[in-house]
Amino acid sequence: MITIASDFGSPYPAAMKGVLCQRTDARLVDVADDFPRQDVRAAAFWLREVLPYFPPSTHLVVVDPGVGTDRNALVVRAGDHALVGPDNGVLQPVARRLAPETSLESFVVDESRLEPVEPTGVASSPQATLGRDDSSGPASNTFHGRDVFAPVAAAIHEAGRKSLESLAYLSPADETVDLELPDAAVEDGRAGGEVLVVDDFGNAITNVPGAFLEGCERIAANGELVPVGDTFAAVEPGERLVIVGSHGYVELDVNQGRGDDAFGLTPGDQIVLEDRE
Amino acid sequence: MITIASDFGSPYPAAMKGVLCQRTDARLVDVADDFPRQDVRAAAFWLREVLPYFPPSTHLVVVDPGVGTDRNALVVRAGDHALVGPDNGVLQPVARRLAPETSLESFVVDESRLEPVEPTGVASSPQATLGRDDSSGPASNTFHGRDVFAPVAAAIHEAGRKSLESLAYLSPADETVDLELPDAAVEDGRAGGEVLVVDDFGNAITNVPGAFLEGCERIAANGELVPVGDTFAAVEPGERLVIVGSHGYVELDVNQGRGDDAFGLTPGDQIVLEDRE
Amino acid sequence: MITIASDFGSPYPAAMKGVLCQRTDARLVDVADDFPRQDVRAAAFWLREVLPYFPPSTHLVVVDPGVGTDRNALVVRAGDHALVGPDNGVLQPVARRLAPETSLESFVVDESRLEPVEPTGVASSPQATLGRDDSSGPASNTFHGRDVFAPVAAAIHEAGRKSLESLAYLSPADETVDLELPDAAVEDGRAGGEVLVVDDFGNAITNVPGAFLEGCERIAANGELVPVGDTFAAVEPGERLVIVGSHGYVELDVNQGRGDDAFGLTPGDQIVLEDRE
Repeated sequence: MITIASDFGSPYPAAMKGVLCQRTDARLVDVADDFPRQDVRAAAFWLREVLPYFPPSTHLVVVDPGVGTDRNALVVRAGDHALVGPDNGVLQPVARRLAPETSLESFVVDESRLEPVEPTGVASSPQATLGRDDSSGPASNTFHGRDVFAPVAAAIHEAGRKSLESLAYLSPADETVDLELPDAAVEDGRAGGEVLVVDDFGNAITNVPGAFLEGCERIAANGELVPVGDTFAAVEPGERLVIVGSHGYVELDVNQGRGDDAFGLTPGDQIVLEDRE
Repeated sequence: MITIASDFGSPYPAAMKGVLCQRTDARLVDVADDFPRQDVRAAAFWLREVLPYFPPSTHLVVVDPGVGTDRNALVVRAGDHALVGPDNGVLQPVARRLAPETSLESFVVDESRLEPVEPTGVASSPQATLGRDDSSGPASNTFHGRDVFAPVAAAIHEAGRKSLESLAYLSPADETVDLELPDAAVEDGRAGGEVLVVDDFGNAITNVPGAFLEGCERIAANGELVPVGDTFAAVEPGERLVIVGSHGYVELDVNQGRGDDAFGLTPGDQIVLEDRE
Repeated sequence: MITIASDFGSPYPAAMKGVLCQRTDARLVDVADDFPRQDVRAAAFWLREVLPYFPPSTHLVVVDPGVGTDRNALVVRAGDHALVGPDNGVLQPVARRLAPETSLESFVVDESRLEPVEPTGVASSPQATLGRDDSSGPASNTFHGRDVFAPVAAAIHEAGRKSLESLAYLSPADETVDLELPDAAVEDGRAGGEVLVVDDFGNAITNVPGAFLEGCERIAANGELVPVGDTFAAVEPGERLVIVGSHGYVELDVNQGRGDDAFGLTPGDQIVLEDRE
């Protein structure tokens, strides 16, 4: 199985699917095509929270503001999973969730050794000659999802995730770009954290572990007292509450409304929770 | 086959797909991930109009404003189809379309008997311990799509829709929440109805059966005379018309434009159609 | 394999998928459901750029402002691919990319000979009787994606793309609507072209072949001097640049921003590029 995640919108993911289908019969599953644009940290969060629910898979990830620069294309083997994407840190948080950090193995893609991606029957197409007359290899400079990451994901699926060493264009990575999603500072009765992402419902998801709310009926969130709910329905529709979300973190939400608007929060904002009872 | 419909946006449906893929090789087909947020009635309409085009399937439906409350998780067997979703009425209109009402069989899910959904390799994840230390069972309080409905849909697919009785956590439902989409009041030359939904094109879809328009060249819609068209192209681009839509109901549309804006209509608005000729 | 592309938004594509699944076990791949609404030219561009990356497939395309008029339903055999959609030109540019123009074969669908599309179990549904009592055949007048194109695509997949002649409702097309995406006028140091589309990133994609930029460090774009980049990262985030995009054409972009806004460009706008160095 190959999962596909990007910030591409439409229809660029279809070109990646075409390339995948050219090279493998693997089952394809869409994870997202609308991660916040070029937001490596948000993508890293969502991948960490979603991919562990999949059976062993090859995960194709393209959130890649540095496309075309000298940033590497990376493969990370994490337990029975393989992650393919840019070396900008987006793969690290999920990799560490999928397998112990000491067991992770990272590989760099030598793009010059990749077989070029060829559209069919396009003698007249300008992209048919892209990169053919320079030394930059077979890839366009702006769409490595199609030209690099999809071919590598297909090859990994076909070779088997245990046999990454058999792919001649992969070599062990000396060093990779890391990305750590910040941890909240939790002490007795006080948690200093951060809004990591806002989901499509408007729930402001923090990095404060849900256990902090245990036994609380109300909590001060950035100084304002807000009810703690077991469920959204603990408060009336339109009312604010603090809740343990499905990722296990504290969220600032509104029952049937948008928590980000009601609390005035966006990703990256600091949040202090205090148990004043 | 398992179809997937929700109001989740992105990327929550991917977590459901991961759970499904963990437990079954069933073909997965996306119906929608963007039903109007927490709008049980709109979802009920769309499911009623779309799901009957599928071959016998298990249909996973999550539009669930009451998630985490004591509302039941429900399975409805409707002919060769099975519907899985919250007991808030969203499943009823499509169930009655798929099979005679007297033949429908409903089952309640005993959530405490469900095998927990476990992400892989996540010793460090706060969600790994969600609900482990209380009596509420293995589910989060905010994401039953992932923790309850997806596992049940996978199990039904594996057991076979004829063998729901073999699933120990299902028991016949005594009573279920019903939802009736309203019928229009049609008499000679006058129909009093309602806008049920507005589609993505801006077509305002009513509950007035299309037969009402038979033989009409113009119709008064809330008092304004509007042409009746066989096709959108019966009027110039940008012009309003009344038409029989693909669901068989009267729609108030604009050729290559938005009917909802042009007629000033939103779901729930009353609409009176009069044949004044 | 059947690919699916439309401007439908949600959830209409699901009805097409249901019909496809009723009639074939073909693998279904979503190309797009959000092509610019009723914009035949934009869809023609995207299909031309994306579908050639797929292996031989049947491609279902519905961008159809003339639905229900006497425009034909069309099948085009282009090499090992088959394209199914309205005869409004949307299929022509990709067909010419997939195979030499002289080898293309076009067929008209005789809709009156199509087996009707029946939802299951819907005695009470008004759409069950759509078109049953008139001479217009089995299709609704507004949703030929479900009632005409999907059934034809499924039948082509089942019959084999080499055996279109075996489908009794297909007959060779005498004439078809053509659509030519305009070519840029390129002479030494000057290119007069057009913005064909703006992608979801805001990149304004022109029809000027990328080779025009060879050796340029800066270019005058509609009179303003802009840097030419090999990659987005050639300029600072938020800065404008001109680049060869992944389709091989000149694009007017902003690194990590929207080129259409920064350059004030929308599809159809003229663009003059001049090498003043």
